[in-house]
Formats: sequence, C-alpha cells, structure tokens
Amino acid sequence: MTHGVDISEVVRQAIFALALIIFAAKCGGELLVRMGQPAVLGELLIGVALGNLGLLGVTALEPLRDNTMLRMVAEVGAILLLFEVGLESDLVQLLAVGWSALLVAALGVVAPMALGFWVSAWLMPDAGWLSHLFVGGTLTATSVGITARVLKDLGKANTKEARIILGAAVADDVIGLMLLAVVSGLVTVAVAGAVPVSGIGWGTISWIIAKACLFLGVAVVAGRRGAQRIFAYAARLKVAGALLAVCVCFCFVVAGMASLAGLAPIVGAFAAGVVLEEVQYKPFVERGERRVEEMLFPITTLIAPVFFVVMGMRVDVRSFASAKVLGFAAVVTLVAIIGKQVCGLGVLESGVNRWAIGVGMIPRGEVGLIFAGLGSSLLVQGQPVLSSTTFSALVLMVMLTTFITPPLLKLAMARER
Amino acid sequence: MTHGVDISEVVRQAIFALALIIFAAKCGGELLVRMGQPAVLGELLIGVALGNLGLLGVTALEPLRDNTMLRMVAEVGAILLLFEVGLESDLVQLLAVGWSALLVAALGVVAPMALGFWVSAWLMPDAGWLSHLFVGGTLTATSVGITARVLKDLGKANTKEARIILGAAVADDVIGLMLLAVVSGLVTVAVAGAVPVSGIGWGTISWIIAKACLFLGVAVVAGRRGAQRIFAYAARLKVAGALLAVCVCFCFVVAGMASLAGLAPIVGAFAAGVVLEEVQYKPFVERGERRVEEMLFPITTLIAPVFFVVMGMRVDVRSFASAKVLGFAAVVTLVAIIGKQVCGLGVLESGVNRWAIGVGMIPRGEVGLIFAGLGSSLLVQGQPVLSSTTFSALVLMVMLTTFITPPLLKLAMARER
Repeated sequence: MTHGVDISEVVRQAIFALALIIFAAKCGGELLVRMGQPAVLGELLIGVALGNLGLLGVTALEPLRDNTMLRMVAEVGAILLLFEVGLESDLVQLLAVGWSALLVAALGVVAPMALGFWVSAWLMPDAGWLSHLFVGGTLTATSVGITARVLKDLGKANTKEARIILGAAVADDVIGLMLLAVVSGLVTVAVAGAVPVSGIGWGTISWIIAKACLFLGVAVVAGRRGAQRIFAYAARLKVAGALLAVCVCFCFVVAGMASLAGLAPIVGAFAAGVVLEEVQYKPFVERGERRVEEMLFPITTLIAPVFFVVMGMRVDVRSFASAKVLGFAAVVTLVAIIGKQVCGLGVLESGVNRWAIGVGMIPRGEVGLIFAGLGSSLLVQGQPVLSSTTFSALVLMVMLTTFITPPLLKLAMARER
Repeated sequence: MTHGVDISEVVRQAIFALALIIFAAKCGGELLVRMGQPAVLGELLIGVALGNLGLLGVTALEPLRDNTMLRMVAEVGAILLLFEVGLESDLVQLLAVGWSALLVAALGVVAPMALGFWVSAWLMPDAGWLSHLFVGGTLTATSVGITARVLKDLGKANTKEARIILGAAVADDVIGLMLLAVVSGLVTVAVAGAVPVSGIGWGTISWIIAKACLFLGVAVVAGRRGAQRIFAYAARLKVAGALLAVCVCFCFVVAGMASLAGLAPIVGAFAAGVVLEEVQYKPFVERGERRVEEMLFPITTLIAPVFFVVMGMRVDVRSFASAKVLGFAAVVTLVAIIGKQVCGLGVLESGVNRWAIGVGMIPRGEVGLIFAGLGSSLLVQGQPVLSSTTFSALVLMVMLTTFITPPLLKLAMARER
C-alpha cells in the first residue's frame, strides 16, 4: 500500500527536473525577450540546447526526454494554456470585429493548409496523407503575440490593420483547433485499426468531422448552460480558491471528455475556456475574488513553458545535417510565409495596408507547436504520424517565421506612409 | 522515443483524477467551513470517504490510492504548502514577540512529545521506538488557524493571549520541522541498514541532529546570502512570471537538497521559505509584480488539498472497528490535549488567561499530518514506521483536536470575564 522510499526518490527527481526546466525556460525566455522576441522562442531554443547536450558528451539529461512525469506536466501545461487562450477568446466580440477578420482568418487557414499538404506530399511521398495533414495543420494557426508587440512598439496598435490581424488570429485559433479536432479524430480511427489509413473513406471522414463539430457544438451550447448552473451554485461557495478550483475542474473534465471522444484534450480545454465567459463567474468577482485569468497566470507561467522546453528537447539537431531535412524546413517556411500573404485578399474595406496584414499573420506559435507535438506523439501502426525529422523541421519553421516577422512588418508598415 | 497513445492515456487519467480530487476537496472544505471548521478537516474527511468507498462495494476509485502521479502531486503540494508557511514565518518578528511565546512553544513541543512517546511505548510495545518518535512528533505541531478564527469571531484577535498563541505556533512549526529533520534522518540511517534500529546509539543520533542543524543552519545563512545575490540578479529579469519561477525553483532545489541530505523535502521547502524574506524580492514588487505569496496562492489552493485528500484516503475506516485502535486514538487525543495545557506555564507576564493559551494550542493540523504521513510512507526493513492503524488513529486525533477547540476556547475566554 505504501511505496515508501521509491516515492521520495520519484519526488526528488521530479522537483529537481522541474526546477531545472522552469529555470532554463525563464533564462531562455529572458534572453529572447531582451532581443525583442517572444519568450516562447527562448523556451524552445533552450529546450533544443538541453535536448542535444548529448552531442557534447553530456548525457546526464538524457533520461529527462522520456520522463513520463515531465511529459505529463508538459501536457497539463498545454491544456491549461489552451484553456487560458479560450478564456481570452470572446466569440461574440470576434463576430463584432467584422467579416474582414473572419475572411482573413479563413483564407489564412485554407491557403497554408493546402500548400503545406502539397509540399509534404511532394517532398515526402512515402509519409502517408495523415502526416501531410499534420504538416498542413501546423502551418495554419497564427500566433500574433509578436505582431501585436511590434505594432505597439511602432505606435500602430490602434490601426484598422491591427484590429483585423488580432481578430483574425482569434478566429484562426478557433478554426485551427477545429481542424485539430478533425485530424486527431482521423488518427484515432487509424490507430483503432478498424480501417487501414489508406482506406479511410469519405464516410469515415464525414463522421469524424460530424463528431468533432458535434462535440464542440455540444460542449459550447450544453457547456454554456451547464456552466451557468454550476457557477450559479458555485457562487455560493465560501471556501478559499473555490472559483479557480471549479474552473480548472471544468477544464479538466471537458478536456478528458474530448480525449474520450477521440479528440485532442487541448481541443476540449479550449472549448471549456470559450464557454466560461466572464459572465459566468461574475458573482465571485463581485465578492472580491480575483478573476480566473489572473489566478491562472501564476500556474500557466510556471508550467506552460515546460511544454515548450520539452518540445524543444524533442528536436534532434543532427537531423539538420541532412540537406533534405534542411531543404524541407526551408520550403515549409517559405510556404508558411507565402500561404499567409493570401490573407490580404480577405480585407473588404479599402484604404487598408494589405501587405501589412499578410506579414502580420506570418508568425506561427503555440497552437502550431501543439499541432506538431501531437503529430509526433501519436502512433499509427507503431510509427509516429510525424517523423522525428519532420517534427524538427516544423519547429524550425515556427522559430524562423517568428524571427522574420518584426523586420518585415516594420518594412510593410513603412510602405504605407 | 515517443510514448504515443500511452501518454494520452496517462494524461486523461491524470486530469480526470485531479478534477475529481480537487472538486471533492473543495466540496469537503466548503462543508466544514460552513460549520465553522477549517477547510483542511473537510478535505481529510472527504478523503476518508473516497478512500473507503470500497466498503460500500464501489471499487472504481481503488487504483487512485496507489497512483504514483497523484502521490507526486500531493507531495509537491505539501512542499509548496510548507514553502508558503515558511514565507509567512518571519524569524526576526518571532523573536520580537518575546520570550513568552518561545517558552510556550518549547513547553508545547516537549510535553506532547514525551507524553506521545510514552503512550505509544505503553500501548504498542512491539512497534519500535522510531514509531513512538513519530507518534510523539505528530503531537507536537500546533495549527492555530482555527484558534485565530475563533478568537477573531469572539473579537479577541488583538489580545495578549492571541499574540502569544500565534507567535508560539510559528515557533512550534520551526521546532516541529527541526524535530522532523532529526527523526527522518534517523529513519534514513535505519533504512540504510548500516545499524539495526535498536542499535542506533547516541553517537549516531548526535550526528543526525548535528547534520539536521547543519543543513538548516547552512540553508538559512548561506541561503540568505545566496538568495540575496540570486534575487539581485533576478530583479533585472523582464520575462513574465520570473519572480515566481525563481522562488519556486529555489524552493524545489533546497527541498531536493534536503532530501539528498537524508531529511524530509518539506524541511528544505520550509527553510527556503524562511530564507526568502520579503526584502529579497522587493525590486520585483516595486516594479509592479505581485508578491510571491499572492502568486503562490492559486497554486497551493489547487494542489495542497490534494495532499490532504490523499492522506484521508489512506485512513482505513475498518481499523476503527477494533477497540484497541479506538482506545489508542482516544488516549492519544487525550494526551494531545493534556500535553498542550503545560503551555500556560510558559507565560511570563501576569494577567494573562493561561487556560486560554493552553486550549488555543490544542489543534493539530497540516504539520502534524505531514509528520504522520511521512511516518506511514517510510519503510524500515520492509515495514512502514507507522502502521496503517496507528496512522488512522493519528488522523482521527488531528480531526478530534480541531473539532474540540472552538467550544473549549469559547469557555476558556468566557472564564476571564
């Protein structure tokens, strides 16, 4: 019944590993923030460095790469991060941003998805179409944190361009997550082995799309009603931290249900966040409890970086020695940039700097990484859907698109004048 | 390299288990808070209920009791809780409360320790003296949360009695943790098997005491200097959440070092908290970042209850069917109450309600439970130091002393008038 000394051994390893990873993440984040880049890039880079120390003969950290505990913390970090993103995505407000943002977002999903699928099918014909889907999917989601920052630094945060980009990025997240729901559902079918990957017909695909839409629809509609009831009751709770606890439990349950339904847990976490609009927990805030976002921040700031460091650790630097992999990374990055330039066409208003919109949508970030990470950890017939080299190339793409945006955006905004 | 589907299985189980435990903890806490009792009691009780559902034929939760992931979260919860307690224990301020508080605390440690050891040796002669030590240790630490609450409700929070009790409770925590350091060091020696338990001589004991004092001394003195340097540097960090991350990493590293030194990790976590006085992170607060305690609160409010629910789950209700166990629990509770009545003798000032002081020190809480929990999870020659029945009896004692305090304290304070 008692594990005794093993548990203290497990705990000691866990706290040392967590201390190392969190400290490294913040150091990497700090370095990149000072360079005017987002912290997540530094977390990735430090992860790449830690994960490839073996090349320098330092093998002490090798066990960390496969550590179940660390991977679990990383996954829970991603779940809470997407919950936070969902909390910040107000669907009603998004619709008010107007059709331009939605059209920009839709074009910015379709074009990179199609280009990514095509490039993957062209350069890696043996990889199977599920792999192509994941490459395309990773190219869809925009992370406009860096864009918002650059626009702010340029004093352009309140321009029409800025509002369209930010609105489109939120829509992008929603569409990207729905895409992820469908793709992960397809993988589940393939894993179940009922149908060979090549034999998944339109019937199966339609059923999965229907299931994903159904889950999200039910989660959002029933969740909103259910949440209202739960929170009306929970509002009467007096114990400390009740609001945060109820919200996190709600997030975990919806994420777990998504996982049971064959979707990615983060899809559920995102849906849970969208459902929990501020309205739901007004009684708590009125009572003086802090807002959920505020309470979540210390938790996500501590464990979400673990996810990105672990992602970085999975990048095998040696794979970049191959011209083929580097070439693939270069082409994917190019396609990622070109794919988003179509976005400018979606702007309905006149007098808008269309080039700035296309450039502003370039950076891929958290959601793209989560897409790639999922692809590399799902197994179909014993093989990960995304090979280790493809995964490394995609992480490189995420980093390159982020690095390239600030200078390009400054150029694009200058053109306007 | 990739665990694939197993990881998503592990994550799903983890988030469902955490959602269940956290939700149950808050429900239990809520119930008891409404009854004017501390939330921790409710968390324990709900844990006892969940852990003994098997008696009603519900076995679905049985796997949770041995779940390594859950136990790890529980342990990390206890570590962060003790870190928080340490952060709130200002040693300088404690010394200013005066000698009365220190003397009250010292008497409140020595008397219950001696009585506990004696009762354990008397009623369980076969259990070995390490077990007696743990019983005595569990009886030492006061948890005055409930006392503070009752005094506040009575409008007596600013009396001399209240200040002495609160000061003594802080000193109690420090002495109790040092005791835990020594006792867990003794167990480590016994586990190493170099010396049979019965043969641990005064030389070994002195060495362990010296080591524990050395560790705490070095941690506090060197830690304070080191922390000052680290924080002077960390103050220049710009990345979000840097302060919290640095503090938590510091806590984890000191806790891990304590564990390496053969002490309980929570002893290190407490020392780390004591070291990090507010002075250290002033630059952050001046910059507008929130205080560490404030940032820690959402984390501990979420995962510390997991520790208490897990503790409750380990209580085997069936063991209370035995008259011997119930008798032991009754005697230990009696001794726990009597032992603290000596405290009144430590008050040097006149005109102080000595009975109120003794009564106010009765409740045992978090630190006592951690003591008992450690005793039940440490193995010596394959046997836990505290047997499952002794552990159950001690948890019952913690609950009873807490339940009994409010009415007794009201009586004691009324006497004064």
